[in-house]
Amino acid sequence: GFAKVDHHRALRNGFPEVVFCQGKAKEHIIEILTNLLKHGHNILATRATPEVYEAVQAHIPEASYSELARVITVLKEPILKRGRVLILSAGTADLPVAEEAAITAEIMGCQVERLYDVGVAGIHRLLDNKDKLNDAQVLIVVAGMEGALASVVGGLTDKPVIAVPTSVGYGASFGGLAALLAMLNSCSAGIGVVNIDNGFGAGVLANSIIRAIVASEV
Amino acid sequence: GFAKVDHHRALRNGFPEVVFCQGKAKEHIIEILTNLLKHGHNILATRATPEVYEAVQAHIPEASYSELARVITVLKEPILKRGRVLILSAGTADLPVAEEAAITAEIMGCQVERLYDVGVAGIHRLLDNKDKLNDAQVLIVVAGMEGALASVVGGLTDKPVIAVPTSVGYGASFGGLAALLAMLNSCSAGIGVVNIDNGFGAGVLANSIIRAIVASEV
Amino acid sequence: GFAKVDHHRALRNGFPEVVFCQGKAKEHIIEILTNLLKHGHNILATRATPEVYEAVQAHIPEASYSELARVITVLKEPILKRGRVLILSAGTADLPVAEEAAITAEIMGCQVERLYDVGVAGIHRLLDNKDKLNDAQVLIVVAGMEGALASVVGGLTDKPVIAVPTSVGYGASFGGLAALLAMLNSCSAGIGVVNIDNGFGAGVLANSIIRAIVASEV
Amino acid sequence: GFAKVDHHRALRNGFPEVVFCQGKAKEHIIEILTNLLKHGHNILATRATPEVYEAVQAHIPEASYSELARVITVLKEPILKRGRVLILSAGTADLPVAEEAAITAEIMGCQVERLYDVGVAGIHRLLDNKDKLNDAQVLIVVAGMEGALASVVGGLTDKPVIAVPTSVGYGASFGGLAALLAMLNSCSAGIGVVNIDNGFGAGVLANSIIRAIVASEV
Amino acid sequence: GFAKVDHHRALRNGFPEVVFCQGKAKEHIIEILTNLLKHGHNILATRATPEVYEAVQAHIPEASYSELARVITVLKEPILKRGRVLILSAGTADLPVAEEAAITAEIMGCQVERLYDVGVAGIHRLLDNKDKLNDAQVLIVVAGMEGALASVVGGLTDKPVIAVPTSVGYGASFGGLAALLAMLNSCSAGIGVVNIDNGFGAGVLANSIIRAIVASEV
Amino acid sequence: GFAKVDHHRALRNGFPEVVFCQGKAKEHIIEILTNLLKHGHNILATRATPEVYEAVQAHIPEASYSELARVITVLKEPILKRGRVLILSAGTADLPVAEEAAITAEIMGCQVERLYDVGVAGIHRLLDNKDKLNDAQVLIVVAGMEGALASVVGGLTDKPVIAVPTSVGYGASFGGLAALLAMLNSCSAGIGVVNIDNGFGAGVLANSIIRAIVASEV
Amino acid sequence: GFAKVDHHRALRNGFPEVVFCQGKAKEHIIEILTNLLKHGHNILATRATPEVYEAVQAHIPEASYSELARVITVLKEPILKRGRVLILSAGTADLPVAEEAAITAEIMGCQVERLYDVGVAGIHRLLDNKDKLNDAQVLIVVAGMEGALASVVGGLTDKPVIAVPTSVGYGASFGGLAALLAMLNSCSAGIGVVNIDNGFGAGVLANSIIRAIVASEV
Amino acid sequence: GFAKVDHHRALRNGFPEVVFCQGKAKEHIIEILTNLLKHGHNILATRATPEVYEAVQAHIPEASYSELARVITVLKEPILKRGRVLILSAGTADLPVAEEAAITAEIMGCQVERLYDVGVAGIHRLLDNKDKLNDAQVLIVVAGMEGALASVVGGLTDKPVIAVPTSVGYGASFGGLAALLAMLNSCSAGIGVVNIDNGFGAGVLANSIIRAIVASEV
Ligand SMILES: Nc1ncnc2c1ncn2[C@@H]1O[C@H](COP(=O)(O)O)[C@@H](O)[C@H]1O
Ligand SMILES: Nc1ncnc2c1ncn2[C@@H]1O[C@H](COP(=O)(O)O)[C@@H](O)[C@H]1O
Ligand SMILES: Nc1ncnc2c1ncn2[C@@H]1O[C@H](COP(=O)(O)O)[C@@H](O)[C@H]1O
Ligand SMILES: Nc1ncnc2c1ncn2[C@@H]1O[C@H](COP(=O)(O)O)[C@@H](O)[C@H]1O
Ligand SMILES: [Mg+2]
Ligand SMILES: [Mg+2]
Ligand SMILES: [Mg+2]
Ligand SMILES: [Mg+2]
Ligand SMILES: [Mg+2]
Ligand SMILES: [Mg+2]
Ligand SMILES: [Mg+2]
Ligand SMILES: [Mg+2]
Repeated sequence: GFAKVDHHRALRNGFPEVVFCQGKAKEHIIEILTNLLKHGHNILATRATPEVYEAVQAHIPEASYSELARVITVLKEPILKRGRVLILSAGTADLPVAEEAAITAEIMGCQVERLYDVGVAGIHRLLDNKDKLNDAQVLIVVAGMEGALASVVGGLTDKPVIAVPTSVGYGASFGGLAALLAMLNSCSAGIGVVNIDNGFGAGVLANSIIRAIVASEV
Repeated sequence: GFAKVDHHRALRNGFPEVVFCQGKAKEHIIEILTNLLKHGHNILATRATPEVYEAVQAHIPEASYSELARVITVLKEPILKRGRVLILSAGTADLPVAEEAAITAEIMGCQVERLYDVGVAGIHRLLDNKDKLNDAQVLIVVAGMEGALASVVGGLTDKPVIAVPTSVGYGASFGGLAALLAMLNSCSAGIGVVNIDNGFGAGVLANSIIRAIVASEV
Repeated sequence: GFAKVDHHRALRNGFPEVVFCQGKAKEHIIEILTNLLKHGHNILATRATPEVYEAVQAHIPEASYSELARVITVLKEPILKRGRVLILSAGTADLPVAEEAAITAEIMGCQVERLYDVGVAGIHRLLDNKDKLNDAQVLIVVAGMEGALASVVGGLTDKPVIAVPTSVGYGASFGGLAALLAMLNSCSAGIGVVNIDNGFGAGVLANSIIRAIVASEV
Repeated sequence: GFAKVDHHRALRNGFPEVVFCQGKAKEHIIEILTNLLKHGHNILATRATPEVYEAVQAHIPEASYSELARVITVLKEPILKRGRVLILSAGTADLPVAEEAAITAEIMGCQVERLYDVGVAGIHRLLDNKDKLNDAQVLIVVAGMEGALASVVGGLTDKPVIAVPTSVGYGASFGGLAALLAMLNSCSAGIGVVNIDNGFGAGVLANSIIRAIVASEV
Repeated sequence: GFAKVDHHRALRNGFPEVVFCQGKAKEHIIEILTNLLKHGHNILATRATPEVYEAVQAHIPEASYSELARVITVLKEPILKRGRVLILSAGTADLPVAEEAAITAEIMGCQVERLYDVGVAGIHRLLDNKDKLNDAQVLIVVAGMEGALASVVGGLTDKPVIAVPTSVGYGASFGGLAALLAMLNSCSAGIGVVNIDNGFGAGVLANSIIRAIVASEV
Repeated sequence: GFAKVDHHRALRNGFPEVVFCQGKAKEHIIEILTNLLKHGHNILATRATPEVYEAVQAHIPEASYSELARVITVLKEPILKRGRVLILSAGTADLPVAEEAAITAEIMGCQVERLYDVGVAGIHRLLDNKDKLNDAQVLIVVAGMEGALASVVGGLTDKPVIAVPTSVGYGASFGGLAALLAMLNSCSAGIGVVNIDNGFGAGVLANSIIRAIVASEV
Repeated sequence: GFAKVDHHRALRNGFPEVVFCQGKAKEHIIEILTNLLKHGHNILATRATPEVYEAVQAHIPEASYSELARVITVLKEPILKRGRVLILSAGTADLPVAEEAAITAEIMGCQVERLYDVGVAGIHRLLDNKDKLNDAQVLIVVAGMEGALASVVGGLTDKPVIAVPTSVGYGASFGGLAALLAMLNSCSAGIGVVNIDNGFGAGVLANSIIRAIVASEV
Repeated sequence: GFAKVDHHRALRNGFPEVVFCQGKAKEHIIEILTNLLKHGHNILATRATPEVYEAVQAHIPEASYSELARVITVLKEPILKRGRVLILSAGTADLPVAEEAAITAEIMGCQVERLYDVGVAGIHRLLDNKDKLNDAQVLIVVAGMEGALASVVGGLTDKPVIAVPTSVGYGASFGGLAALLAMLNSCSAGIGVVNIDNGFGAGVLANSIIRAIVASEV
């Protein structure tokens, strides 16, 4: 058919291929999801509009939906949560991306804590939560506009920091470019950056780090 | 001749036309400076290389030079310093731009305090100096790379903040574009941004604010 | 909850956190506004569509709306106007941004005068109003297309000039980029530039300068 | 050989192919110029370094050179000047480009007047010369930085205006991009723009307009 | 009021201020047009949607509309056509811009000939019409995609050529940027370029050249 | 009329002018198609919306439509298929572009094989199909996001590879720019790149190569 | 060691790995070339400065050098030329890139004809050579500035056209970007574009097409 | 003084502030290094030219230098290597960046394995080394040109992948932008990207992941 679902991926990466719904026809999405479900794994589909969810749910009644994060999940196996991932957001407009990261990390088996709306315009909100930074094993920083939160967090911790620029802003933000460039040029060394609005990618990277930690614990 | 020196400017703006040396022949620079000196004002020339200074000094022995800031000054009138301008820099590589701002503001009559190398990668260096922020009437923040210092300073003060992005950085800094975009998109509202590496412009704007303050005091 | 309203801000900056409505759910906006109103301050919410206003008004009947400027205001305290801010616009299409600046400066306590549609294609319209330039303490110049008005105004005055590029234009204006670059590169030194269409930021910066003037008057 | 000199051009365009020296070997330039001279026309070569001129002069002793404009000329026929072209420049750093335009227009047979260093930061310098604008048949405006001079001149005249952005500036001028975009977006309608630093092209266009005027006079 | 209509313009430029409808409220447009009509001149309004035209016509019944060119015209004075302007387009998708140029030039008093759909992919269509190129006094070339038509026309004629890049295309045309850059870098020297899709500006420039020709004829 | 259909093209290129529907009025499209059909050739129209197809079909009932590829075809002559073109796509979201290429190549007379959804995230899907690569004479690689598939295919084959970047992606894909730049910079030398989403152009180029192969076979 | 020379490539692609000298130390280049020579194949090294050649020749005396094309070649096997590749250039400044393409195609076994300096500013130079276009099996068009030559050639032939944008130009050519975008957006469908200044890549692609032609002849 | 060395950093991040030499005066570098050495830690200075090293060595004789990686190191404490970091490079021209990453990770205490010159143009070189991918805990992929190696590696492993785009390339690589965008848009989810040529940042991020692994092992 039109799709070659990568069934090896659950073996290689510990989680089956995630469906990127944007630009796909509803029937295609349903066909791929149905195909994936046959293997009994948990399922994640990102960038799903409410209309897509409605169509999916008609075929897969157990499918859940986060309207904020625009993700569909189907739980077939129990999730064993391990690791400690902290997700910070600069503003409330960054929540959809932060939640996409959170749900991705969670369904892949991470324990996730959220610390939202702690942007640098009121930096005491972040400084009051230093203990949360210390408790985490991996941090995800989600920020639009000028993305300065990533640099400040990076300066306060020695943990791996994953930065997600968002398209929140207007004018010279150029759809998230300002935050992206800021994060790539951070004076706090050692921040790993993912694509604009790519909460999914940040969740996957956080999970791969947690996997590496857990693997070595054994 | 080739140049129409704007002699009205000392009247309109309180300081005569400043000479931008980049891309001008030495003889032209000397001719313009000599012309300006006839009016008895203090003189400022920016973007001057050591070679330009050497040529100028041969004709105008009282000319001084800051190699770091690349500016030539000639003092003919005493400067009455008023106002309190604080200039912050993120790193030591931003010093040439910070000093260009400082010398510009000083020769135009501002009292300038410097707080250098307080970038957000080690934010305690800034937080330890909050009193300096409180004492100032105008703040100039000079930063390259991701320019996050401007947002953090803007969040800590209610004073006018002038942000100067610098070309310090490499790769996706794109010659200062990353810092410029960050400052324009700052989540700390009300920051006035000048061109990349434009310490001179920041000094002029700071001085115009100090002038407005002093004018209303009378 | 999802939002950490920065209640310190009224103390730090003299005005409480302003709500940026773009990209926020109506319920979130209402929740944040209601939360802010408890402290008895005046309230400003920008980038509000008519639909957002309708929803807000159902909960906060005393809320006012400027459809042109797309801002919601709630007045709880009398405003003591001080200072003299002049707002110029190049064309009539720049009015939404100019009015956002004007209402922002006014609710924060500035006296605002407007001089609209004085673009450089008919420069006599500006030159006939030089007395207004002289009377002001701070000037805000709002212009799209090539943004030349900022440079001409900057050359005519020694007051602080804040330039706001707008997205008015098409083709190679690239959403306001042409005006933004022009203002950053102005040959009239000392202009502070804010983000494209950021009337709000210009109003805040003007107010911070007026605050500095008033503070020193005492 | 390597070059197919376009000998038809003198017939089609009234002036033979102009040699663009940048990126050509000296021997090639000399070979092309010698080839062109055989037809007895006047010759123009642009973007010539002093080294190129030296090499050319050894073979063609009657060749002249403008170091400022970086052009080589060889006069074989008398030039009959007609038409009135006015060339304005914003600053003295724009002179090389303005002179390239002037010499190009002159060798093609235009009468050229120069009005240099009349940028908008001191707009009285331009307003004092309105009669020169009125006398001209075609105007060329040469400006770097934010290029605002083109808009102001365009608003003051009904003559054809040719705008030449220059690479004078730094930072967010991006090698002349700021001035180029400004000129393309001018609110003064009907300005024809040429490439950054392309004084040559402006001279050619001015000459083609003068040719059209003269052609209709007969 | 909100608008300072530039009534001098009819005197300065031979045609009153043209109304740019994009981004203006219908009432504003009607108010400005009504205001302009009082002076008895012909009127041009560009970038008008059918809805705008409908609203205008309700108040100004004699208003005409070109849906293709999106322009409204009101004829109050007879037009004396003089000069010969040739407008070429590369494809049929460029017609809206070509017609905006044509109607602008015509209402300002130019005789206009059209030569459409002669793009370089089938170059014989252009070469078969060389006589039309020879007959014209000014040429306007309208082309999207790679804009090569401007260079080919420029190489075939010694008349002034005005190039209008259009946003016709997709992908790496980047909204007309590809054609704009091509026209600015044309190897056929002396082409004056206007903004992307700016048929209006091309018409104005063509008219100013025709005016200069006519002025010298007397 | 408004259009100069290039009837020579069937002779020059072996297939008549293809209609690009985007930005054309329905009546214009119908007029051009009807005009082309008179010559008895097969017809191809690209970028056709379902509404355009509906209007076309009302006049030309034998017209077919691929909703996925957005192309209309009218078959008047039998197609003699020759050559072996392999079309690969990285993901299922790239199908519309891949099918535009496939239908274009087929109607021009190529035999086309499809190998879809073989992106490098699961590279075994490609490596398992090496025999298909070996069997083809020309390969078309269609990929969005980072476009890496083109480089990997280019490294596995010595056949001509045509790369089509697609606009599939978001954020820093900048509408397909990321894939376009990747393909242009491929470390696998000798890949010919067409515009973003230009499946049509890839099909034409593949066909011209097949034509050259067939021409030499005789 | 530091390099894993891809010795399979001669088998896969019919020619061994080509050495890209830019950014490599002389010793590394010599080591890689010596390594490659052991297999008895002909050798090509691109982007070699005269200094690199001098160092190479000291170790490999039979190495030849084209200073214009900046390529080193070592011939160990006789070259059997087949196929007909025509290389066109727009100007003489494009020769280095055109020659890089020519030498690459030749050493890989193609017969190459050159048609240089036939840019569209004097289009008769191209039209006079239509027979050369007709004789070729593959065409390579090398052009800087606005790159219009590719579109005109593409409109005149049904053969595969490979377009190479060059960095010849200045200002808004942005290092070849203008020509690159023009070629990607060509209205002459089916042109395969390679990277700016990538004569090497064009030669490889031309050769792969000739290989496909020859393979099918057998 | 001019610098506020961040002595807390060794405590916060396990390694003292690293000196970025680019754009700093030699005396400043020596002063900062001397200052840091007083605390007895190992020292790392990046982007150091041979001249800088020479000056440093005169004051700090025990300083070592990697000319390839442009880094200076001073070892004062023994390094306890733990963890397994694999660094892959696409070409030999990427070695300076790969080595900067390697030396950074090593001095911070990581065990580093190198797998260089395994770009996707000859993909068997990578596929032959799958065991090395399996053995690592963290992978760093260094690639210029189109950066495809990161996607292929990301598809083959479930370990955290850090991607470093390099400026290796020319033309439309735009100084590494092509590789950067490719890596950000990788279809292999969960790759953390650092700035162009930022081997240092990749080394720091790898080390922070190894630290997190080691911390949880205890
Ligand atoms: N300064 C210049 N800027 C742009 N084009 C030029 C310049 N000088 C000469 N030319 C054009 O460059 C072309 C010569 O290119 P070439 O064949 O490479 O010598 C001629 O068509 C000239 O019209
Ligand atoms: N289509 C158009 N493109 C660019 N400028 C235009 C256009 N139509 C009118 N204008 C100009 O826009 C200005 C009017 O702007 P405003 O004051 O906002 O109405 C006038 O100076 C006109 O010359
Ligand atoms: N939100 C997302 N952003 C980026 N990539 C995604 C996202 N969701 C899924 N993917 C990736 O997209 C690929 C699926 O592409 P496709 O074959 O077109 O369905 C998988 O490799 C996923 O890892
Ligand atoms: N001028 C050139 N432009 C682009 N790629 C080239 C050039 N010359 C050689 N190459 C490619 O560069 C690769 C060699 O890279 P490296 O391993 O760094 O030596 C080979 O795959 C060649 O096909
Ligand atoms: Mg908030
Ligand atoms: Mg420091
Ligand atoms: Mg107006
Ligand atoms: Mg001057
Ligand atoms: Mg057509
Ligand atoms: Mg897939
Ligand atoms: Mg030539
Ligand atoms: Mg290699």
